[in-house]
Amino acid sequence: MKYEVLKTEGRAKRAHMETVHGSIETPVFMNVGTAAAIKGAVSSADLEEIGTQVELSNTYHLHVRPGDEIVKKLGGIHKFMDWHRPILTDSGGFQVFSLADLRKIKEEGVTFHSHIDGRKIFMGPEESITIQSNLGSTIAMAFDECPSSRAERSYVEESVARTTRWLERCKVKIDELNQREDTVNPQQLLFGINQGAVFADIRIDHAKRISEMDLDGYAIGGLAVGETHAEMYAILDATVPYLPLDKPVYLMGVGTPENILEAVDRGVDFFDCVYPSRNGRHGHVYTAYGKLNLFNACYELDDAPIEEGCNCPACRRYSRAYIRHLLKAKEMLGMRLCVLHNLSFYNRLMQEIRDALDAGTFGNYKTKMIESMRSGS
Amino acid sequence: MKYEVLKTEGRAKRAHMETVHGSIETPVFMNVGTAAAIKGAVSSADLEEIGTQVELSNTYHLHVRPGDEIVKKLGGIHKFMDWHRPILTDSGGFQVFSLADLRKIKEEGVTFHSHIDGRKIFMGPEESITIQSNLGSTIAMAFDECPSSRAERSYVEESVARTTRWLERCKVKIDELNQREDTVNPQQLLFGINQGAVFADIRIDHAKRISEMDLDGYAIGGLAVGETHAEMYAILDATVPYLPLDKPVYLMGVGTPENILEAVDRGVDFFDCVYPSRNGRHGHVYTAYGKLNLFNACYELDDAPIEEGCNCPACRRYSRAYIRHLLKAKEMLGMRLCVLHNLSFYNRLMQEIRDALDAGTFGNYKTKMIESMRSGS
Repeated sequence: MKYEVLKTEGRAKRAHMETVHGSIETPVFMNVGTAAAIKGAVSSADLEEIGTQVELSNTYHLHVRPGDEIVKKLGGIHKFMDWHRPILTDSGGFQVFSLADLRKIKEEGVTFHSHIDGRKIFMGPEESITIQSNLGSTIAMAFDECPSSRAERSYVEESVARTTRWLERCKVKIDELNQREDTVNPQQLLFGINQGAVFADIRIDHAKRISEMDLDGYAIGGLAVGETHAEMYAILDATVPYLPLDKPVYLMGVGTPENILEAVDRGVDFFDCVYPSRNGRHGHVYTAYGKLNLFNACYELDDAPIEEGCNCPACRRYSRAYIRHLLKAKEMLGMRLCVLHNLSFYNRLMQEIRDALDAGTFGNYKTKMIESMRSGS
Repeated sequence: MKYEVLKTEGRAKRAHMETVHGSIETPVFMNVGTAAAIKGAVSSADLEEIGTQVELSNTYHLHVRPGDEIVKKLGGIHKFMDWHRPILTDSGGFQVFSLADLRKIKEEGVTFHSHIDGRKIFMGPEESITIQSNLGSTIAMAFDECPSSRAERSYVEESVARTTRWLERCKVKIDELNQREDTVNPQQLLFGINQGAVFADIRIDHAKRISEMDLDGYAIGGLAVGETHAEMYAILDATVPYLPLDKPVYLMGVGTPENILEAVDRGVDFFDCVYPSRNGRHGHVYTAYGKLNLFNACYELDDAPIEEGCNCPACRRYSRAYIRHLLKAKEMLGMRLCVLHNLSFYNRLMQEIRDALDAGTFGNYKTKMIESMRSGS
């Protein structure tokens, strides 16, 4: 792994990263394919067409179905979904803490019931890393606990301490698995995760602590889970300076285009979020002039594309009126076209951010873009 | 319109047809896009990729949503769905008689309630042709009644006589609309429809009667609605010889690959059926060795494509194991890939039929193909 900062503007970073599955230009938005497929009938071929750099899949979902051992037998997740650029897998922790029933947290890990068939599953740091190793993703995430943004200070302190111990175990486990002969991707990278809810001092202590470990990158987890945007930005302002400058920083589960612009300004490299695909499936589409709801009657006779000048597979050929009709008729094609547009919009936003950073005009670009998006929403 | 029979083998015809939206090589299978979109998230761009010649849309569905006047204002159905090859619209009759509630048939037409919002709608020959003219399809179908295959002889006689009178009114109406200045497609073609349930003599009398009218093509309706395959083939054997040889023959709503091979052998040019898309959405996929159910456990670790040698967007990249996973995880992408494969399979079958007719080897091809498809099903 090679990570090189090419340019900075304030705390914003423009970087280049090399992995065994090809290079990544950051800042980058990862396109979320929970179960090794992007919701909305979007394939790896489509991701190639819309300029996606990194695909993100969910460890928990792939563990319960089809099963990570199945994916390993089929040659790993890259071969499984025929996507040969970088893939990041989350640790499963977030899903365990948000989706699963009857969870029980112990030092060893978490016992919970599958949301598919109720089956009892145990997952700790070693299990999470083993699953991710079976999948063979480019970047594995450490297994962490994501406490509520409203959790008590004492609970958060205890939880963060455990997350640190879990991170140490993840590191040991991945080093061991990467040595094995039958490992799908023996160069699998490991990112650690900073936690601490909205307590800046806990976040900072934790950032310092994990920065001492030789990890391939650092994520900030436990944000965008109910706190305000102002709280989120304050935590980034406080925490990012304590993460290594020469390693990628990933803000998990974030967010709106405006959130991303603000977080890039605070030093973040990697993003992921279900907004573009989820909003697309509901007919909410992004433009540089704000979001449109294509269900609105005003688009019934509108033969313009979703966004003038957009070169995505939806805007190249289809009108708002046609896509609105598809959505109202519950034709899957309507969802597909909106998701393709939204992911293209996010990918293009990141390209523009990188171009602005390259040109040293990111500050201007950010102000203009936020103003423009607010004007029409 | 130009229709030229290039070759015959027994009663089987290989023909070339020219329309204002381009040419059609027959025998041809039309890909069904009920509401101006193929179910399974398939777009007009996809149809181009899989070699579709003719798209079929449903008058009834487009009349109730988005409304044919809306489509006309947007420039017609070709512009609406950005598909510039031929489109055939059905008359709405079949949906009126199968989907709608509380229908009342009179000489003038049919009164029924929309299945969307319960709104009372009247549709007769003039209304159906006006809607199809607003849509601007390449080929309009006459408004007919499709009696049950189990209907009494006396009812069928009465119904067929009314269908003939309705056809005369359709002809008058389309001639009038094609003269109007604001007509979307002033060269819209009209196909008449032969009815008569399973009564060969009624079918023959009706075929003779409508053949005297100067229509652009002739359909055989009211089959594949509950009768046996043997009954259907017997009706084709009896009826097709009484339809003009120098006009295209369209067997509505048919069918399985085997049905199509048998009907081509009996002189049919045009086909349409929801089987490939409906089966695809349920994970049932076609191969030259029979249908596969991708939900079956035997495909869990099967890294072969759906069909070896198939060049469709699914088979070019994805394995049975991956598509099975997508179907089980209820990912829309699974349905999309299966539908794309099935439509490709049907389109390729028709290409092979045309090639065999060109080579004078259709009889052999038909026997071999039926045997092969039965062997593995």
